[in-house]
Amino acid sequence: MVTRVDAANLAKRVLGGDRRAVARAISMVEDGSSDLAALSEALYPKTGRAYTVGLTGSPGVGKSSLASALVEAARAREVTVAVLAIDPTSPFSGGALLGDRVRMQAHATDPGVFIRSMATRGHLGGMALAAPEAIRVLDASGRDFVIVETVGVGQAEVEIATAADTTLVVVAPGWGDSVQVAKAGILEIADVFVVNKADREGATEAVRELNLMLRTGPKLAWTGTLQRKRRQRVLEEVESMVAARLRQEVGGMLDRGSETGLAGDLAERRIDPYAAATLLLEQVRADGSSGRGR
Amino acid sequence: MVTRVDAANLAKRVLGGDRRAVARAISMVEDGSSDLAALSEALYPKTGRAYTVGLTGSPGVGKSSLASALVEAARAREVTVAVLAIDPTSPFSGGALLGDRVRMQAHATDPGVFIRSMATRGHLGGMALAAPEAIRVLDASGRDFVIVETVGVGQAEVEIATAADTTLVVVAPGWGDSVQVAKAGILEIADVFVVNKADREGATEAVRELNLMLRTGPKLAWTGTLQRKRRQRVLEEVESMVAARLRQEVGGMLDRGSETGLAGDLAERRIDPYAAATLLLEQVRADGSSGRGR
Repeated sequence: MVTRVDAANLAKRVLGGDRRAVARAISMVEDGSSDLAALSEALYPKTGRAYTVGLTGSPGVGKSSLASALVEAARAREVTVAVLAIDPTSPFSGGALLGDRVRMQAHATDPGVFIRSMATRGHLGGMALAAPEAIRVLDASGRDFVIVETVGVGQAEVEIATAADTTLVVVAPGWGDSVQVAKAGILEIADVFVVNKADREGATEAVRELNLMLRTGPKLAWTGTLQRKRRQRVLEEVESMVAARLRQEVGGMLDRGSETGLAGDLAERRIDPYAAATLLLEQVRADGSSGRGR
Repeated sequence: MVTRVDAANLAKRVLGGDRRAVARAISMVEDGSSDLAALSEALYPKTGRAYTVGLTGSPGVGKSSLASALVEAARAREVTVAVLAIDPTSPFSGGALLGDRVRMQAHATDPGVFIRSMATRGHLGGMALAAPEAIRVLDASGRDFVIVETVGVGQAEVEIATAADTTLVVVAPGWGDSVQVAKAGILEIADVFVVNKADREGATEAVRELNLMLRTGPKLAWTGTLQRKRRQRVLEEVESMVAARLRQEVGGMLDRGSETGLAGDLAERRIDPYAAATLLLEQVRADGSSGRGR
């Protein structure tokens, strides 16, 4: 743990673009460090400059290769880049896989490129909350362009990818018929569809199929200006933060419930889940009224 | 909406195994009906008899065909079955795809089989909370065996599949190398791995690869007896329920925050997300102390 003074000093170094400080700050995000509040306070006023792109798609469609190509294109225009590769958090091991980073090695020696894999090791609220914080660290460090690459197309990945200014959904020829695409629920989240590996058989069909689905599928709501989208995003993030903290508190109450008998009452079916939830809710309020809390 | 008397009557019919009542109860779960509390109270004491199996895996590996084969095997032993096919909820359309149900048509006329696709249309807490409630309806209706089939291997799907007594993870030959399997984060959640489409090339390799990964991968914690697992599950569910209700409340506060200026302060970066979360948290408590709530 660092002191508040240390956090302010770390923030200063992050704002100066110090790579080691940026790496350390992101590790703090991963860990859910108690110093994140102080770090956030210092960094937040300096954010909002970077443009963020989210990359999502099934494993194997070539997201990392595409990210690498985007980095190359950005660097050719002298734009500084950060790549945040978000690996699925295993509910047990919690580890990040670094496999994909090998494709990025071509850029490893370029000071204009910052590459980082990320997992949640203790952050309250999981990756959905950790990712935007890490993005803000990179933003504050002066990167012009932040690419967030997620693995898979599950709800968590979708949530992370849509927390970017532009969301790219990557598919590959033969990746699946239209039913599979619709099933993955990604039709509506894409700002841009990328049919990768376009030299493969079936690329033309894939484009045609996507076009057809976009015409016949649900109409997308116009999300408004970038500023409005960002404003909405941070509100949702704060809502999730509060919810995660309250949830932790309720978890503690349930643990104490093993003593008070609530867990036993539930197991023996003397009380049903709805009634138990109402009981706990009243307890959260009672804790508030008695001046408890932290 | 139904009255409390209606809910009690509906519960009675569900307990008698009335298919239409079961279908209606599950629709209420999908909608997040305000009568779920009354329904839950009436049904919960009669649950815990059914054995539940969760089926998960990437789109296209043949989960529905496997579910159909399981139904057949169960029926041959005169075990009554329910199949709950959980389709991904698109964040926008919210619709369920019924495509997979066609594979189930062979069982459609068997009164010992109940098949239902499910989406969340308004349930607070989403599918992770709606699914176990729907399973309890099926359990209470007297089904011996409940199969829950989810689409994909995202966090939400994993959560649903692991809320069953036994979790089957379905893969197909050529589905991906070991890195892809590990990436999907499903190594740790499977009680049973099924290599489907085993007549295809690569099936032996897939089994070998899985075996190797299971030997070298993270050691799995012994989850204890079925009773203990179920007990833990319902506690987690109650925790999620309370969290979802609190979250809704916080959402309301944020909406009011557009008037009080919190949203503007965040957008203008006069307050950072951490500080805003702390402020709202205090407000939840204050609402409790002033006797507010519902």
